[in-house]
Amino acid sequence: MKVKGRHFETIWIHPANQEVVQIIDQRYLPFDFVIEDLVTMEDMFLAIRDMHLRGAPLIGAAGALGMYLALLHAPVNEEISGYIRGAALYLKSARPTAINLAWGVDRVAGAIVKCNSRQEMIQRALEVSLGIMGEERENCRKIGEFGLTLIEELSSRKQGMPVNILTHCNAGWLACIDYGTALAPIYFAHDKGIRVHVWVDETRPRNQGARLTAWELQQHGVPCTIITDNAGGYLMKQGKVDMVIVGSDRASSYGDIVNKVGTYLKALAAFDNKVPFYAALPSSTIDWELEEGAMSTPVEERDGNEIIYAEGWIDGQPGRILMMPEGSPVVNYGFDITPSQLVTAIITERGITKASRIHILKLFPEKPNTRLYE
Amino acid sequence: MKVKGRHFETIWIHPANQEVVQIIDQRYLPFDFVIEDLVTMEDMFLAIRDMHLRGAPLIGAAGALGMYLALLHAPVNEEISGYIRGAALYLKSARPTAINLAWGVDRVAGAIVKCNSRQEMIQRALEVSLGIMGEERENCRKIGEFGLTLIEELSSRKQGMPVNILTHCNAGWLACIDYGTALAPIYFAHDKGIRVHVWVDETRPRNQGARLTAWELQQHGVPCTIITDNAGGYLMKQGKVDMVIVGSDRASSYGDIVNKVGTYLKALAAFDNKVPFYAALPSSTIDWELEEGAMSTPVEERDGNEIIYAEGWIDGQPGRILMMPEGSPVVNYGFDITPSQLVTAIITERGITKASRIHILKLFPEKPNTRLYE
Repeated sequence: MKVKGRHFETIWIHPANQEVVQIIDQRYLPFDFVIEDLVTMEDMFLAIRDMHLRGAPLIGAAGALGMYLALLHAPVNEEISGYIRGAALYLKSARPTAINLAWGVDRVAGAIVKCNSRQEMIQRALEVSLGIMGEERENCRKIGEFGLTLIEELSSRKQGMPVNILTHCNAGWLACIDYGTALAPIYFAHDKGIRVHVWVDETRPRNQGARLTAWELQQHGVPCTIITDNAGGYLMKQGKVDMVIVGSDRASSYGDIVNKVGTYLKALAAFDNKVPFYAALPSSTIDWELEEGAMSTPVEERDGNEIIYAEGWIDGQPGRILMMPEGSPVVNYGFDITPSQLVTAIITERGITKASRIHILKLFPEKPNTRLYE
Repeated sequence: MKVKGRHFETIWIHPANQEVVQIIDQRYLPFDFVIEDLVTMEDMFLAIRDMHLRGAPLIGAAGALGMYLALLHAPVNEEISGYIRGAALYLKSARPTAINLAWGVDRVAGAIVKCNSRQEMIQRALEVSLGIMGEERENCRKIGEFGLTLIEELSSRKQGMPVNILTHCNAGWLACIDYGTALAPIYFAHDKGIRVHVWVDETRPRNQGARLTAWELQQHGVPCTIITDNAGGYLMKQGKVDMVIVGSDRASSYGDIVNKVGTYLKALAAFDNKVPFYAALPSSTIDWELEEGAMSTPVEERDGNEIIYAEGWIDGQPGRILMMPEGSPVVNYGFDITPSQLVTAIITERGITKASRIHILKLFPEKPNTRLYE
């Protein structure tokens, strides 16, 4: 999507040096637009773990490119298959909840098994990575087109009055390669001239809503209003929300949605107020092995300082402020789980489906036979 | 309650000068303990509006003492009844949602009607204010004792394992004269040797949970953990919450609870996970005229900069940080409404009651026939 009028994606190969990956360092948004060069797999590990980039589909591509960087710098004297296994485990450990990360890393690891030389491995890893990026870009485009129909329907029911859409965290193009998942339908609707307005949950503790989603939407000209994570229930009770769309970091094939912590609370409020609640996700986000309810999902517990300090901008410079005394007792879960019963439908690259195993498998009939534990 | 071992209340008459009201200026907590002198009704207006003090029961006493300060400085040449009406409207406008503020102001205004001199009015206003403080102190003590029985029951059911209690915002002694409403039962349980642990919602945007509730509990030695407002649902789903207790800024006689925005989301999560949800409130918080559902409550929309900036501590000094660009589109509702259906019971100074009009009126049989704000 556009940044000050120029088209950008979130991750790409350096145009002048194929051995360097470039990303938008999202930590400085919306205050500063910084491009970062990543040269080693350690660079990519830190970029993922410390959230220079984030978002399920983007992390998948980043994991794959992390393997590419790992292979570029594989030590000559080491046995390569052990090195690849180690690199894969290392990269996957950067964000344990994100299913796409493991998926992206494993796709490269699987694809290079039969390569005959290191050079061939490097070339294959790059091809697979670019392939993932292409797929994710195309998946988001399709999610946007399918989701658009839901907004069009609400818009015509509201006779052209703005459709108010609430979203949590950032599931926009900054979380993907381009377009976004939850935000793709909104961009497509806006581009088609449909009036939309987005309620953006600030999304504590890292404020991806206030910092990334609002910035994205504003760059594209979509009207939005930032609210605290506490406010969505009251807005829904007042009839000020027509639909909720969120992304997902992992979904079960039963339709349970693992997403940024707080999503579940919004789903409860939507259900209580008869507001439709949608999760938009490419099928790479579905963990086909996950049990019904998804409660076994490893939910990462992040650094408590994300809560104790607020990060932002002071005198035109990045900085942070103590919001409570240092060493305060805190716990910082990154995700929660929204049970399928609260999900009106799931928007995928193959269409919109009810949040149930039977319906999801109808869209992805090839999936259930592919893996263990089916 | 104790502050570094010394007993404090939240508001009192200056021991050396009866014409000055003193308060704990809560804006600097938990970083600094500041006592502020209030001399004029404008001082009190600003203290209420800018939240040097807050909390329903405390605001009631503050409103009454604001009238006392107004009378102390009534202009000699002005017609007094018009001045009193103006002062009452002015003070009540500082926090329109808080029913206790209007109640405290009106109690003084009503009590001085029959006074024969300005001096008598001043004396009567002080008496009424001290009376309100005494009542609120006593009400909180009783709420603590009644609520204690609920915690005792859970503790014995858990065979002495810690009872995990989630609370939102601050409804502790800092919100009252002493003891607190939601926190009073917790203090009483702790003092009785019952093991309790409190999950403290940070309570964006002003972080009264992280800044006030956690500080209070720690000063008193009660174990607690601060969480983001987003996290409570996930904790409940994991079985890590045994009960929720919140305060209230206004309640309907049908059992609907107006409280800090975000309370409704926690009530939904509690209901979904079969966790009991209690509101602790003195009867002064009940708006006997409010309709069922309480949706006509005037919910104050506060300054958007409360969301845009995070306030805290930098290099040992109070400061603030930009969390999103200045002028970002925000809306900042202060409260939401939890319908009675989600409230397990209400803890009042006369006992614990189901959240329904019939049951509430059984506890307060004198109320329905009385006049406005009696």
